[in-house]
This record gives sequence, structure tokens and C-alpha cells, in this order.
Amino acid sequence: MTDVGIAAAGQIKFTMESRPIHDILFDAARTILTDLDSTVIDGILVSTNDTHRYLGVILSEMCGIQPRISHTVESMCGSGGNAIMSAYSHIKSGLARSILVVGAELPNSPGGILKWDMSRGQFQSPIYWGSILTKSYKRRYDISDESVSTVAAKNHSLAADNPDALYGYRCTPGDIMQSKEITADLHLLDCSRACAGASAILISDADTCRTVTDDAVWIRSISQCVLSATFGRYSTYDRIESAGRAARDAYKMADITSDMIDVVEVHDAFSICEIMATESLQMVEYGQGAAYAHDLYVTESRKVNPRGGILGSGHPLGATGISQMVEIFRQLRGEAKDRQVPDAYTGVTQGMSAAGTSSLVAVMQR
Amino acid sequence: MTDVGIAAAGQIKFTMESRPIHDILFDAARTILTDLDSTVIDGILVSTNDTHRYLGVILSEMCGIQPRISHTVESMCGSGGNAIMSAYSHIKSGLARSILVVGAELPNSPGGILKWDMSRGQFQSPIYWGSILTKSYKRRYDISDESVSTVAAKNHSLAADNPDALYGYRCTPGDIMQSKEITADLHLLDCSRACAGASAILISDADTCRTVTDDAVWIRSISQCVLSATFGRYSTYDRIESAGRAARDAYKMADITSDMIDVVEVHDAFSICEIMATESLQMVEYGQGAAYAHDLYVTESRKVNPRGGILGSGHPLGATGISQMVEIFRQLRGEAKDRQVPDAYTGVTQGMSAAGTSSLVAVMQR
Repeated sequence: MTDVGIAAAGQIKFTMESRPIHDILFDAARTILTDLDSTVIDGILVSTNDTHRYLGVILSEMCGIQPRISHTVESMCGSGGNAIMSAYSHIKSGLARSILVVGAELPNSPGGILKWDMSRGQFQSPIYWGSILTKSYKRRYDISDESVSTVAAKNHSLAADNPDALYGYRCTPGDIMQSKEITADLHLLDCSRACAGASAILISDADTCRTVTDDAVWIRSISQCVLSATFGRYSTYDRIESAGRAARDAYKMADITSDMIDVVEVHDAFSICEIMATESLQMVEYGQGAAYAHDLYVTESRKVNPRGGILGSGHPLGATGISQMVEIFRQLRGEAKDRQVPDAYTGVTQGMSAAGTSSLVAVMQR
Repeated sequence: MTDVGIAAAGQIKFTMESRPIHDILFDAARTILTDLDSTVIDGILVSTNDTHRYLGVILSEMCGIQPRISHTVESMCGSGGNAIMSAYSHIKSGLARSILVVGAELPNSPGGILKWDMSRGQFQSPIYWGSILTKSYKRRYDISDESVSTVAAKNHSLAADNPDALYGYRCTPGDIMQSKEITADLHLLDCSRACAGASAILISDADTCRTVTDDAVWIRSISQCVLSATFGRYSTYDRIESAGRAARDAYKMADITSDMIDVVEVHDAFSICEIMATESLQMVEYGQGAAYAHDLYVTESRKVNPRGGILGSGHPLGATGISQMVEIFRQLRGEAKDRQVPDAYTGVTQGMSAAGTSSLVAVMQR
């Protein structure tokens, strides 16, 4: 079977502006199509929680492409990762040679709340599980509020060098802790913000990658783990078990170990999520994620969430998984400008949905 | 790469009853799970236009399965075909061994109307394009209303032997023409009816097929063609061009010719659609589809739409493509009871979305 690579990637700036969903999908697609012979594309997948129908085909028409494969993929916050996995499999299977995957969302997305999960009672907002995870972790490992908020300070500061970020500004853990207290365990700036945004990547077989670029980034593995839809049903509250399992599978499939990771984008929907994610990805031991984030912050390392993650960049749900991959693509090609991690060869993305009830991990190499 | 087969299939009766979407998804899944060791399943895909999110993962939890792959696929009326194609590619690529694909819809589905297509002006209902296709075909080939309605008479009559059909009754073209006149070219019974329904199939690699059954049905090919989202933009009004292209690709991939087809399920959203589909599938010359339907009707043949098609069975959008495949599975295994086509070895499904702007064709063999 062919190797599968990323031949091109691009995205638009994330904003709070509400425009038609097909317009922002097209704007993201154009960042790739401008410099490309679009006849190589024989699939178009859209990733979104938006309720408009037939968006894959609508985007195909807007792009002037008549693909052999097109549909929309949805799995809440993790939709983008699922669309990438689907494109990967369509290419690996030989059904397609090159698939344009575009994710988009608007600020008022219906994907933010999982009404089906009755375990949350009247607490439907993600703030609910963000608070429980934060409180549980702090108790288990005796971590301070300031430790947690260091993640947000790091990521908002990193986003200052990301021109596509919703907002970004250099700040300290103290600044985060002075933002509005949302719950006993969460300040406003510890929480990612739903926004408008769209991101695009072109996933291709080896031959097509080589016709498009001399410098493709290869997807070595991609793996999802689904535990439940109900928050906490099959996991504890102090780790993201689904991410750990997906990472083990993805590392095995890619034949890497976690110490080989040069740069990673993790799903920091809340500050605590980055702490848990670096642990699940085996970058540090369980309980050491906060100390690790502190080290990254004080050394101004860009290894984890160089674009500012979801906290710094904003969270357009269906675009988020794609935008993580866009960042890794740029990092591994040395095109991340002010955000560049030196000599990045191996990159990883970790996405998740609905309180980490499912996760997806992918490994990319230059 | 492994062969890909259908190891099991089932569905619930289509009705006009509105129940929670996850309940009917689960009811369809249970028709398969009852007799199965569910540990073989490592993927769950849902096909629907319903606006509830995370249904793939919700269904996974309801089934007690923790899959490696789960998401929802949407592409209007053709969602089911796309979900099957996605499952096929995930298995072919080696990312999964066995994927449960479940499609479901409720009567008030938002998938019936494509608001984006401004070419339709205020005529958003599918009746609009159904009328234009009917009128165009009648003019082009000088076909009578009675010829068109023969398709509906055939399919409603066939549905009388389908216990899962929304309704089915033996009737004549005259009965169809006495039903309410919806437009100058369409009677009520020439139009399929959106309804509640859910269908499920288990798509597996060759090894898993053999552990589940001695009698798998093999998917020899699956191919989609997307022309546009706008009705009529890249095709004439007297044929379904996307179906013709998808069929050519699918036959080539399966190495079959149309005369090898023993049984077929086509997307008869309106009577005219079956006429056009049999032409697009090369079962008859262009212009001969109505005469062919007449022959099938008078000889009581079950070769085309043996379950009664969409006209006879009802049209739960996200389930429709799956239910077509369920019928072919049963036909090729000789389990279609009163609807059985004798000695069926090669079966075909043809689905489409949004006035035939995209189509999907699959070839199955015993």
C-alpha cells in the first residue's frame, strides 16, 4: 500500500465573525488551491458540526472540482481528526489518490454541548467537565491553581506569534488567575473559546505528493480510541484514558517512542487538558504534566502547542483537528516562522471529543 | 489488500413514528448484534442527516463497544452509500477489521431540502426537481404519464412482500394516476415519502467475514461520482449523468458488465428516477427505461427494486443506502423469502443525493 502524506496545508485567521459556513470552507480551501493543479484532487471531505447539509459537495462545486468521493464527517470537537483518518484510509485503500480535507465552524456551533449525556444533569456546558477534571487532578497530585494556569499563560503567549490565532498576547499565570472566575477551578482564560475558523490540508498518495511538492510530510500512523459518550463512564477524572490508548496504538503503528517527538499539538480545551495530554502521550509520567508545562513556560519552549494550542488560537470545532495538522505540517517543513521549533522531524497531534470520551492521535514525519 | 465483505445485515420496519434517533439506531444495530460476538467490531459509523451530534460514539456506548473508529457521515439522501464506502476503505486500508454501519432518519429530517441551491428559487422541495426530470424525460422520449406511473405501481406492489416497508399494496398504474396530482407531472404515489427507519450492516475483512458466517457477500467495487451541488448545473434533465459515471467506474473495478446483474436496488425517489437509473446502469439503452419497467411490471419480475425500492419501502434518508445493501445481502444469500430473485449471484446498488447531483454505485457478489 502507498505511503500517505500531506502535500499542502493552509488556513484562514480565526475570528468571532459569523459568515456563511460554505464561505469560510471555501476561503480555507483556496489557501491550498491557489498554487495547485486542482485536477490531482479526487476527493473532498468536510469536517464540521454545522447543521447545513451536503457541504462536501457544495464545497466541491465552489472549488470547481468533481470528485469521486465527498461527504461530511462529524464527531464533535474531534471531527477534524476523524476526517483526516477517513481521507488517509480512502487513499491507503486505493479508492482515491488525493483528498482535500477542510474543516470549519462558526462561533454558535451546536457541537459544543452533548445533550444526550444525561450524566451531566443540568450542567451541559463543557465548563462542567473542565471543572471536574481540574479539581480531580489538583486533588490527586496536590497542584496549585497557578500551576494549572501556567498552561494558559504559555499558550496565550505562544499565540502572540500566530497570525491566524483568534487572539494572542504575552501574559503570566497571574494574568490568567486575574481573569473572571468561572467556577471554583476555572478562570475565563483557562477555557478555550468557540470561534469561527477554517483549515485545509491536502492528503495524498506518495506519487501525488511528489507531483505537488518536494517536501511532503508523511502520516506514519493515525489511531482513534472511543471509550464512551458519557463523561467519566469508563475512565477516571484525573487522566484522559482515551488519549493514552490512542497514543499507544499510534506509536506502535509508526514505530516510534515518545522521546522521539519534536513537536506536538494537543487538545487544550482547558488548561488541565494539556497537562493530562502530555502525560497520556507518555512525554512525562502521570502527575508530572504541570511541572512539565512550567518548564516549557519558563524556557519559552515551543515543543507543545507552538501555535498557542486551542486556548491561544481559538476553537472552531470542526477546524480544530485540521488546524493542528496544519501546524505540524508547517513545523516539520521549517515554515513556522516565529513559531518554529528547531530541527523538527517527528510531530504528533492529539485531538479529542466530549470530555475526552474519545481521542485521536496521529504521528507525522518529514 | 484484503477482500471486503458484508458479514451480517438487518433493519427495522420503516414507519412514520418519531422516536429518538439514537433509539432507532440502536434497534437496527441490535438486529445484527443479537447473534454476534461483538468483540469483532472495531468501528462504528453512523449515516444520518439528523442534527444530533456524536451519534457514532453514542451508538457505540449503547452497543457496549469501544471501537477504534467512530464518526457520523452525511451527504443528504446518499449518506448511507458514503458511510459504506468509508467503512470499505477503512477496512481495505487495514485501519479496521470490521465496521458496523448504521443509518437512520426521522420523518422530519433536515436532509430533504438543500437550501444552498439558489438555482431552485422558492422551489426548495424535491418535488421541484422530480417534476422537471419527469417532464424533460417525457418530452424527450414521448412517454405517457401511465408509463411513468408503472414504476410506482410495480414498486408499491413489490413492497407488499416486504414486511419492513412503510406501506405496500398491490396496485396498478391507474391507481397511481388516481392519487392526488402534486404537479402537472407527478402524482402523490409517484413520490417517495420521508419516514423513520434504520438499517445496519457489518462490513468486514475476509478473515472476520469467515469467523462470522460461511456465507458472506463480497463488495467487489464501490464508486461515487460528484458533478455539482446545484441541480442541473453539469447535466441534462433527461438522465442522471452522475449515476452513469459511477456505474462505469464500479463495473470496471469489479470487472463486470451490466448483463451480469441479477438484482439491483436503485434510488427511485420518484418514479422517473428508476427509469433513468436502469438506463444509467446500462441495463437498457437511453430512452428504453420506461418500456423496461413495463416489462418488469407485467412479468412480475423482482430484478429491479425487489423490496419495493424507495417508493414502496419509504425513504428514511440516512438509512436508505444501507437498506438497499441489506436487500442485496439477503437476495444474494437466498434469504429474501417472498421477494427472492432466483439464483441471484451479482447484485448492484445505486444511490444518489440532491436531484442526482451525486451518485454512488456498488457491486456485490456471493
